[in-house]
Amino acid sequence: MTLARESSLIAILAGGTGAARLLRGLVEVADPVGLTAIVNTADDFVLHGLRISPDIDTVRFTLSDDIGELGWGRADETWRSMRELRELSRHAPAGSRASDWFRLGDRDLAIHLYRTQRMSEGASLCEVTSELADAAGVRVAMLPATENEVATKLTLASGEEVDFQDYFVRRQHSVAIRSVRFAGIDVAEPAPGVLEALEEAERIVVAPSNPFVSIGPILSIRGIREVMERRRDRVIAVSPIVNGQAIKGPAGRMFTELGIEPDVTSVARLWSSIASVLVVDQSDARACGAIAALGMEPVVLPTIMHDLSASSSLAKNLLDV
Amino acid sequence: MTLARESSLIAILAGGTGAARLLRGLVEVADPVGLTAIVNTADDFVLHGLRISPDIDTVRFTLSDDIGELGWGRADETWRSMRELRELSRHAPAGSRASDWFRLGDRDLAIHLYRTQRMSEGASLCEVTSELADAAGVRVAMLPATENEVATKLTLASGEEVDFQDYFVRRQHSVAIRSVRFAGIDVAEPAPGVLEALEEAERIVVAPSNPFVSIGPILSIRGIREVMERRRDRVIAVSPIVNGQAIKGPAGRMFTELGIEPDVTSVARLWSSIASVLVVDQSDARACGAIAALGMEPVVLPTIMHDLSASSSLAKNLLDV
Repeated sequence: MTLARESSLIAILAGGTGAARLLRGLVEVADPVGLTAIVNTADDFVLHGLRISPDIDTVRFTLSDDIGELGWGRADETWRSMRELRELSRHAPAGSRASDWFRLGDRDLAIHLYRTQRMSEGASLCEVTSELADAAGVRVAMLPATENEVATKLTLASGEEVDFQDYFVRRQHSVAIRSVRFAGIDVAEPAPGVLEALEEAERIVVAPSNPFVSIGPILSIRGIREVMERRRDRVIAVSPIVNGQAIKGPAGRMFTELGIEPDVTSVARLWSSIASVLVVDQSDARACGAIAALGMEPVVLPTIMHDLSASSSLAKNLLDV
Repeated sequence: MTLARESSLIAILAGGTGAARLLRGLVEVADPVGLTAIVNTADDFVLHGLRISPDIDTVRFTLSDDIGELGWGRADETWRSMRELRELSRHAPAGSRASDWFRLGDRDLAIHLYRTQRMSEGASLCEVTSELADAAGVRVAMLPATENEVATKLTLASGEEVDFQDYFVRRQHSVAIRSVRFAGIDVAEPAPGVLEALEEAERIVVAPSNPFVSIGPILSIRGIREVMERRRDRVIAVSPIVNGQAIKGPAGRMFTELGIEPDVTSVARLWSSIASVLVVDQSDARACGAIAALGMEPVVLPTIMHDLSASSSLAKNLLDV
């Protein structure tokens, strides 16, 4: 596909897969140098001593065409370390996390070794993120939303509070949740460059990411919601809910479990103060009236990014809005 | 080879390769359940966030016939993570250690992931060492010499002080040293079981390991030298110096750089207070008089463990002393 490239400054609030695919489309139709991805870090955690930043890595792997087939990890991956770790885990006490429940491929591991070592040497998360983007040939400016430690915690229906990855990966988000909080968010500051990118952008895109655990923590960082509200006219959001469901992940279930109808009108209600436009899928065209009634301009587009062509088309259409 | 097995209690002060090979021989000729290896931990360090215990791992890999061909790391190893890490390291600032200078194979990595995660969960180094030995089918009791953090530091001839692995691996021990110290040794306590093993052993063996950086730190831990001196009559040491050189590693050079003649008489001088017998190689038979003059009984044996048969023979001969 050959498309004219836009060179305007664009900032994107990004979670994992949905955001990554939209960004991959955007670099086909806009100058990557003008793109700034502000990526959720509230899923970040430490496992086996390694600092793991799942959303940052998913975005970078996707942008460098190095994403695993299942939408996580790296392409052309092998699993020798994980196989050994699984063997070892048979000798660990019950309840230990020293096992292969969070799958880290041999190629993927190098990323976490690198990040952890660099940060132990005093590098900031921004610096490491930039070094890894350089190494992958990614020209999009990738910024962690914050460099402070923020950790998504989920209270399950049972009352137990668990870490995000415990819910998302270990339990395969198969348990009902009651509430979400972001430990550390009160003192979290936007990473260097984040507020500037949002202030200077000609367009701001809210990617089709989970409103509660991906976009939610970004908006909760001091100052970010304020600039989004002030620059609301520049902000286009893409609904992560299509026809009452999330394309991937637990967003649909989370709406229901949190007592919110899982539909695009609910998305409009969540995001109407920070975005002036809500892009919804063709299958949700019937909701345009409700969205408009909430003060957002509805735009109907094919939003399901099943391949690069679909991502590029959505990206191009977004720039044309 | 079929040899009668001894079932007496034997404790071994152990460093890396030389000790590992002797232990591998010992389990051929003695009941492994009676063997306790007290292993140096002063080479332990953290890299890429991972806790690495080189001597403990070399001993365990050797005992489970899983040692790499070069005498370190694991057998049947692959290097996908290290290859990726080397690529990434090109984007790191000069001086960063976030590279593949310390080679961690894909299988080996699982060990360090496991150890680091378990210790972050509150397991002690003893517990993890025991779990890893179980997982490898090793029945020798493996004890870290101490659970406290002790770090070998070397002052180079240039006056610069460097960490042990920086000297040993990154610089391939190619630079002259001026002195050795063990940071943290003043407050280090023997790990649980260490003093008991030394008190209860019918025989104590000082393995042919580097006297300065392998056996030295073990003897410097509070209480260990005292029990060795008191039980000196039970202690047999095997010289790591053969015909003026170390079989492997920098021990020979270290003697010279520290102003000590690199020969078995110097070994006798270093160890005469903690061992009553010094086993030297046939090529050093001429030194027997000098060794005896230092108050040790010299025993001449073939000590070079070039294969399992040689290790077993040395082990059998040691038990016959």
